[in-house]
Amino acid sequence: MHGNTDAPLRVGLVGVTGYTGMELTRLLAGHPDMRLTVATSRGEAGKRLGDIYPFLNKVQGAEARLIEPDPDAVADACDLAFLAVPHTAATEMAAALLERGRKVVDLSADFRLKDAATYERWYKTEHKRPDLLPEAVYGLPELYGPAIAEARLTANPGCYPTSVILGLTAALRAGVIETDGLVIDSKSGTTGAGRSASVPSLFCEVQDTFRAYGVGSHRHTPEIEQELTSLAREHDPAVPALTVSFTPHLTPMNRGILSTIYAKLRAPLTQAKAQEIYEDAWKESRWVRVLPAGRLPETRFVRGTMFCDMAVIVDERVGRLIVVSVIDNLCRGASGQALANANLMSGLPVTRGLELCPLVP
Amino acid sequence: MHGNTDAPLRVGLVGVTGYTGMELTRLLAGHPDMRLTVATSRGEAGKRLGDIYPFLNKVQGAEARLIEPDPDAVADACDLAFLAVPHTAATEMAAALLERGRKVVDLSADFRLKDAATYERWYKTEHKRPDLLPEAVYGLPELYGPAIAEARLTANPGCYPTSVILGLTAALRAGVIETDGLVIDSKSGTTGAGRSASVPSLFCEVQDTFRAYGVGSHRHTPEIEQELTSLAREHDPAVPALTVSFTPHLTPMNRGILSTIYAKLRAPLTQAKAQEIYEDAWKESRWVRVLPAGRLPETRFVRGTMFCDMAVIVDERVGRLIVVSVIDNLCRGASGQALANANLMSGLPVTRGLELCPLVP
Amino acid sequence: MHGNTDAPLRVGLVGVTGYTGMELTRLLAGHPDMRLTVATSRGEAGKRLGDIYPFLNKVQGAEARLIEPDPDAVADACDLAFLAVPHTAATEMAAALLERGRKVVDLSADFRLKDAATYERWYKTEHKRPDLLPEAVYGLPELYGPAIAEARLTANPGCYPTSVILGLTAALRAGVIETDGLVIDSKSGTTGAGRSASVPSLFCEVQDTFRAYGVGSHRHTPEIEQELTSLAREHDPAVPALTVSFTPHLTPMNRGILSTIYAKLRAPLTQAKAQEIYEDAWKESRWVRVLPAGRLPETRFVRGTMFCDMAVIVDERVGRLIVVSVIDNLCRGASGQALANANLMSGLPVTRGLELCPLVP
Amino acid sequence: MHGNTDAPLRVGLVGVTGYTGMELTRLLAGHPDMRLTVATSRGEAGKRLGDIYPFLNKVQGAEARLIEPDPDAVADACDLAFLAVPHTAATEMAAALLERGRKVVDLSADFRLKDAATYERWYKTEHKRPDLLPEAVYGLPELYGPAIAEARLTANPGCYPTSVILGLTAALRAGVIETDGLVIDSKSGTTGAGRSASVPSLFCEVQDTFRAYGVGSHRHTPEIEQELTSLAREHDPAVPALTVSFTPHLTPMNRGILSTIYAKLRAPLTQAKAQEIYEDAWKESRWVRVLPAGRLPETRFVRGTMFCDMAVIVDERVGRLIVVSVIDNLCRGASGQALANANLMSGLPVTRGLELCPLVP
Repeated sequence: MHGNTDAPLRVGLVGVTGYTGMELTRLLAGHPDMRLTVATSRGEAGKRLGDIYPFLNKVQGAEARLIEPDPDAVADACDLAFLAVPHTAATEMAAALLERGRKVVDLSADFRLKDAATYERWYKTEHKRPDLLPEAVYGLPELYGPAIAEARLTANPGCYPTSVILGLTAALRAGVIETDGLVIDSKSGTTGAGRSASVPSLFCEVQDTFRAYGVGSHRHTPEIEQELTSLAREHDPAVPALTVSFTPHLTPMNRGILSTIYAKLRAPLTQAKAQEIYEDAWKESRWVRVLPAGRLPETRFVRGTMFCDMAVIVDERVGRLIVVSVIDNLCRGASGQALANANLMSGLPVTRGLELCPLVP
Repeated sequence: MHGNTDAPLRVGLVGVTGYTGMELTRLLAGHPDMRLTVATSRGEAGKRLGDIYPFLNKVQGAEARLIEPDPDAVADACDLAFLAVPHTAATEMAAALLERGRKVVDLSADFRLKDAATYERWYKTEHKRPDLLPEAVYGLPELYGPAIAEARLTANPGCYPTSVILGLTAALRAGVIETDGLVIDSKSGTTGAGRSASVPSLFCEVQDTFRAYGVGSHRHTPEIEQELTSLAREHDPAVPALTVSFTPHLTPMNRGILSTIYAKLRAPLTQAKAQEIYEDAWKESRWVRVLPAGRLPETRFVRGTMFCDMAVIVDERVGRLIVVSVIDNLCRGASGQALANANLMSGLPVTRGLELCPLVP
Repeated sequence: MHGNTDAPLRVGLVGVTGYTGMELTRLLAGHPDMRLTVATSRGEAGKRLGDIYPFLNKVQGAEARLIEPDPDAVADACDLAFLAVPHTAATEMAAALLERGRKVVDLSADFRLKDAATYERWYKTEHKRPDLLPEAVYGLPELYGPAIAEARLTANPGCYPTSVILGLTAALRAGVIETDGLVIDSKSGTTGAGRSASVPSLFCEVQDTFRAYGVGSHRHTPEIEQELTSLAREHDPAVPALTVSFTPHLTPMNRGILSTIYAKLRAPLTQAKAQEIYEDAWKESRWVRVLPAGRLPETRFVRGTMFCDMAVIVDERVGRLIVVSVIDNLCRGASGQALANANLMSGLPVTRGLELCPLVP
Repeated sequence: MHGNTDAPLRVGLVGVTGYTGMELTRLLAGHPDMRLTVATSRGEAGKRLGDIYPFLNKVQGAEARLIEPDPDAVADACDLAFLAVPHTAATEMAAALLERGRKVVDLSADFRLKDAATYERWYKTEHKRPDLLPEAVYGLPELYGPAIAEARLTANPGCYPTSVILGLTAALRAGVIETDGLVIDSKSGTTGAGRSASVPSLFCEVQDTFRAYGVGSHRHTPEIEQELTSLAREHDPAVPALTVSFTPHLTPMNRGILSTIYAKLRAPLTQAKAQEIYEDAWKESRWVRVLPAGRLPETRFVRGTMFCDMAVIVDERVGRLIVVSVIDNLCRGASGQALANANLMSGLPVTRGLELCPLVP
């Protein structure tokens, strides 16, 4: 249990140079009950955080020193660690930190899929620690809050899955849509492509253009299918594992994901009824905002925050329910959600340090 | 019949201040066999074209004078007119010019739908000249070339429909996809929102954000359904009129449309076979480029041109055919296609003045 | 005097639909000691704030009701008002609220220039209340903090002047540059062009292009000259009023101003000495960050905050001192600075509610 | 001598993967009298040009094969070669091709500076072939057309210098400005940063931000000074070599340079007289467009073309002449200008293949 009167929780960040690492430093700078006490980077070890991120100077955390990613050093310096490193690298660091008694929020994909075989099929690599999968909790606070609060290891959801799962939760639980034939068309800002130097991510290769990628093969697909199946079974335990068509696209903007989700209605449904189902499902939610009928969400309206804005539309003419769901891929889709999980795992309110106002424009 | 040795064809442009009018002035500046002899604008009458479009100075057409949109004056000054005015305004001007013996390429929606009742249902206004609908030819050169060559009145296709119809032509003709359950998720550059002063189109309302609009209600829907039904009936004349889920989105870029199209396969189909169907269908095409398997199109690669680039992907896991199709919404999706139609209507090769290289980056 | 234990200060916002009004609602949403109790808009009166700004829903302030801009109603509902309306409109509202005993932070230009004749020459309109000019304090906290704390009426600085004045303060006070021949070349994000519907501010007219405007005639020029003259006279009271060449440019980005300032050195000066002068001048500053020699500022590193980042470069080859200074034009250059002034005028620490971390990327 | 009736000129391109190489392939695709017969790339040798640049498929040149950069192979395959490789690499290839009797247009900086010592001071590397400097002609067609027509080796100007030299030509020749104290503040699109994979050029590091770079140290400075000195001496042969303050900036757009140039007037000058000097100087020019008084240029209006648009403004209040000059950095500032030089060196009209209309928007 951790509260306002205690000393701040000491947290570590393994992998600071990517966009999710960067976003965690931003969010931790404003957290009243956590202090970034250690951050790692192979390439930048020895520097101050403010040296590599000039925007952090004169802000909380700027003086933190970067070290090599050594599990002993990390474990010594913190109570809980965020892993913002690529998959497979995360497996080993997570295991090492758990052994040393530290809690872990893993932002990679290594502990999201319950089935190691599915992981190996989609990620085309062996899972080194399938023994840890049973205890890892999928870190979507709206769905797994109590389990997260008990977890040593949280698997932070992927950005696309976050937008999709939240978008379909109400409809699946209410049982109003068919579970086969789902089409999910998602559009992401370019931070989703990562911060590695590569020609396809150069400004002049992304600006004023639009493209799809990973059609039929994106690795977030099984994660979406796992969680949507689980939600569908809340309504009907006998439903077979569902599959989806999922297509991600790259958009010339920094932050944001918009997912347009197409589902067949089981039976005719009015717009008013669909609206009611969605509003009821989320009326107590701190971060999910169901828009009034007739309005549609935009990624800018959630920029820098944990909000998930969504609209539900019944297209009676074709018998479909369409959900448009937006999040900030870096905050809600990665680092902010990681912080929410860390809050829960530390006995803090899930919203601590995350009561953010969108930056518009 | 019109050829190189004749005097240039005199063409007129009714409505010059929008983006499609602007794009026509750009394309006409490079056309060897057409001269812009008259252009109209209520607000700018009396000025030189180069006064309102500084980029045209020292380019062919800059000296053209703008006049009020008077049918007599327009008919006097040209052999063929492009109408780049809003729907309903186009109906009357088209009729007036046809009466005066001029050919017309109408870039509005007024003559695209064969059924006036469908027009009235989606556009929520009476169609003033349903008598002209039978002779109007839908101006997609790949599908209706010979008819366009004989037409007095061409209905230039909408931007979204162009990308979608071309994308599905091969699959529908081959009969490999189900005709129900089509999902079309399209993304457009912001020129598609027009050039009227409005807060939602301001730079700071569009930059770094993404949104859907017109979910289930966009007016290009019946146009898409009309033409896809017609293609489906080439394979099976008994197929019922099909319906689609069509969702347009606004993208923070100037030009380009990318449509992601999801269709159920009738029967299992290999990627190789789908690829062959598409490559065969378009191998003689001057403008449609089917990408090799494994590559995906990007809007920048068609910028400023008539190309339609497409990829076809079989997702065997879910039994779907996915087509990703891109065009330049202003050139192929509007003004360039209008010029191709004017070429055909004037006895010129369809590609005259349109052998353009994309501007990348 | 206002402190943590008191009830929150009630503040009003006259003019909520522009970008500076919008930014104030964002900043007030996170202010621990102020509450937005009234906001005005002619066009949107009667709505909730969250209705016109969907990003504010579930955030502090979303429930505020919009009213017509009536001085009595505004004065009744607040202790201090921000005026985010055009010049001349602000004059009358400011006078009316002062008469009703309210404090005023005016974001327009109406009270910035000490000399009414200069105002009238540059703004080409009569100044209706020159009697209020003597008591109005120029609201740049670094220069006029104590006076602001005593003021009833603060004239919030222009965005460009803020970047320029802070950039030259150290050099002018140290007397190391000539006061004639200053060249100021500034680049602003497009929020600086305002939120009115106009064709030149449309996305497709701003994206992927760059332009200058107001060359030699921008209204921020006399404001810059007034304040730089004042700083120069701190070093040498006999120096004549200085003039500057000031050229603003419009940049295809939302937020940010970068000013590149060219000054002739009075005498040879080393980079190390210039660096020392600047670092010494600002070492206690909460918001001004002088970059180490060899590094240059970027607008993104101050996005959404009060920081002013600057680099000073000695170009010995040509005998010039060059300062590159960046701010967020909406936050530091307008609404954030207004809030800082309101803090001081209310007995709060200047940084209250403004300890913000930049949103990067 | 080369004319329409001859076989097309065979041209080679050494270095095809950068933005200037890419732009040359675009421009050559539309050139009626040149054929790209050979292109080199170390990394992509063996591929078709259309394989690495999908936008070129079905366009002239797409079938060209890429080879290793071997001088013998290049010389065998072409009559004239463009070098789009980094400085120093260009020196050796240029020498090798000249020895083999080929003409060379070098887009690097290696032959721009007449003085090898100046080159070595700014580029911090030895010049390997100073013996070639006397015969190299600075490839700015407006200034050196006749010499270019006689040259074996043309040094294609830098992008910034092109905008600056053209911008000041009229004023320097007329002798109306002081030659000391010039301030040149330039803003470039991001293609100017090159196409190498690097974190600072990633989309998310450039989008929605603005920065200066190379303050006081950019390598285009001596090139600007060399040519401006030469122009100043046309008016007054005794004028000392001039120096300038030159600051480049990086802008979140693909293409375009805007230079704002500040000069002190020698004597009072009216706007009308300055306008007349500029209009007279360029009235016969095919590509330089002097804007009417009161209008200002924008980079979009020259996109993809050879135009240089400029405005001249007299600021009588401060005694300065301000010139705002824009070009497309890739076309006019690099590859298009190279093609103009190749035209002249081959006996073709300078404008052949370059009568382009800007792509707006």
